[in-house]
Amino acid sequence: MSFQHAALEELSRNHAFAGYIVKYKYKSKTLGDLSTQFNIFLPKEAESASVPVLYYLAGLTCTEDTGAWKGGFLRDAAEEGIALVFPDTSPRGANVPGEDDSWDFGTGAGFYLNATEPKFSKHYNMFSFITEELPEVLKSSGLPIDPHRQSIFGHSMGGHGAITLHLLKPGQYRSASAFSPILNPTQAPWGHKAFGGYLAGGTEEGKKWDATELISTAKGRRLNIRIDYGDADQFYQQKQLLPENFVAAARAAGFGEDDVQVQSHSGYDHSYYFISTFGREHIQHHAKYLKA
Amino acid sequence: MSFQHAALEELSRNHAFAGYIVKYKYKSKTLGDLSTQFNIFLPKEAESASVPVLYYLAGLTCTEDTGAWKGGFLRDAAEEGIALVFPDTSPRGANVPGEDDSWDFGTGAGFYLNATEPKFSKHYNMFSFITEELPEVLKSSGLPIDPHRQSIFGHSMGGHGAITLHLLKPGQYRSASAFSPILNPTQAPWGHKAFGGYLAGGTEEGKKWDATELISTAKGRRLNIRIDYGDADQFYQQKQLLPENFVAAARAAGFGEDDVQVQSHSGYDHSYYFISTFGREHIQHHAKYLKA
Repeated sequence: MSFQHAALEELSRNHAFAGYIVKYKYKSKTLGDLSTQFNIFLPKEAESASVPVLYYLAGLTCTEDTGAWKGGFLRDAAEEGIALVFPDTSPRGANVPGEDDSWDFGTGAGFYLNATEPKFSKHYNMFSFITEELPEVLKSSGLPIDPHRQSIFGHSMGGHGAITLHLLKPGQYRSASAFSPILNPTQAPWGHKAFGGYLAGGTEEGKKWDATELISTAKGRRLNIRIDYGDADQFYQQKQLLPENFVAAARAAGFGEDDVQVQSHSGYDHSYYFISTFGREHIQHHAKYLKA
Repeated sequence: MSFQHAALEELSRNHAFAGYIVKYKYKSKTLGDLSTQFNIFLPKEAESASVPVLYYLAGLTCTEDTGAWKGGFLRDAAEEGIALVFPDTSPRGANVPGEDDSWDFGTGAGFYLNATEPKFSKHYNMFSFITEELPEVLKSSGLPIDPHRQSIFGHSMGGHGAITLHLLKPGQYRSASAFSPILNPTQAPWGHKAFGGYLAGGTEEGKKWDATELISTAKGRRLNIRIDYGDADQFYQQKQLLPENFVAAARAAGFGEDDVQVQSHSGYDHSYYFISTFGREHIQHHAKYLKA
């Protein structure tokens, strides 16, 4: 697929960890010609060569800045020579009635799917945006990213995004990881609300975007998935995340702990304090595959 | 001095890097009986012993959360077994006319001094708050902090705070460091505005709170000061920081590079991307003295 796109507009550029983090803005075809922003961290190795890239998908209410500011990922990405891309979490300014009424639906809550409900389907296409348009925009803009070495990670709604995109696009990502992901959204309140709003077929159609439903379609693939969550996470306790369901489905599909690794951590919660604690291990997980 | 204070109210507690970051609120005598909030990171070593403590003073417009979220300091503090305290940057809710009109004066801009201008002097006493009341509150609340092992660091206005508090309180801090600090405020627009507003004697009285003016009073002390700034820092370029004046005064007072170390970094700016890049080295600088 080819995306005509306006040139990237550079909004800011900060020197960081001997590389640069740059914020860009451009008009996205996939998001219905809305402007979208993303941050990209380029390690110093990118001055002279194409580098591997790790996409970070943030959670509900977040923006392209949240992971860049609070995750603590740049330090380890710099050490490993890996680029980081931080997209936004939804289209902005679609003006769909009701899109700004909730913190867990609409703006800031795109759920990394392609909407089929007519009033959302023009703009709410974060799946195609992340997996197709954005990589092509990076490439055609001449950014020193190696399209053959991509991985993806995320938090909460963005963890759902990272795992489902990896399952839905065989061969695109070498590895996927997630902090506190929503892993079985067709069985959770957040998922019911998102799928009920974005999808013409509601929760039934949502099975196409549910990691626990999808994992069996990946039988025989090497997935390189790592997932961490905390047992003091209020959303885990409220059964929004449901990692147990995902683990059961993964094991039933023949994936062992060596390939789909899911760890619970005592006392940790849903916050960026948890994420930053385990960020280093996630970057190193991806580096192992991106630099193989 | 003894500060009667209401019990600390715990607002939140997050497990982080095997320790905890806790947000407290209490009514401060020094700040004119206003409620103030701070974050404290306690490494896992604090479960069984008193630990050294490093205070972080944030810059203009910031709060007790800014350094905790964006500095990336917890990881290294956890590795070194050091507590971090993140106070707010001013009193909140003093209701002094005009205190909310500017981003660089009043709320969020307390400048770590004690005001003498009558309309500010009841509440704007961040110097006594940081150096006297807060350490005593930590102690009397039973938090596992060793009062004999304290150091201090900060950013921009908070870097000014860290260096001046260290110079004004001999024996209190084992070391001080700063990112992009305001080092000669009596010669800079921010300082003129702050001292003109908070101090009855204006900029002339401000010399009492100016690191470049104060450094000669520290002759013969061992200071263990480290300062880093970027040459792409817009506020450095606007001559708000004036590190050269401080270096000249320090060298004239007999302080060598081994004791008062000031480094410029090519291409770095005033942002937390710069701070987080050098955070590890700052924590290690303090660890050397706090754990000696």
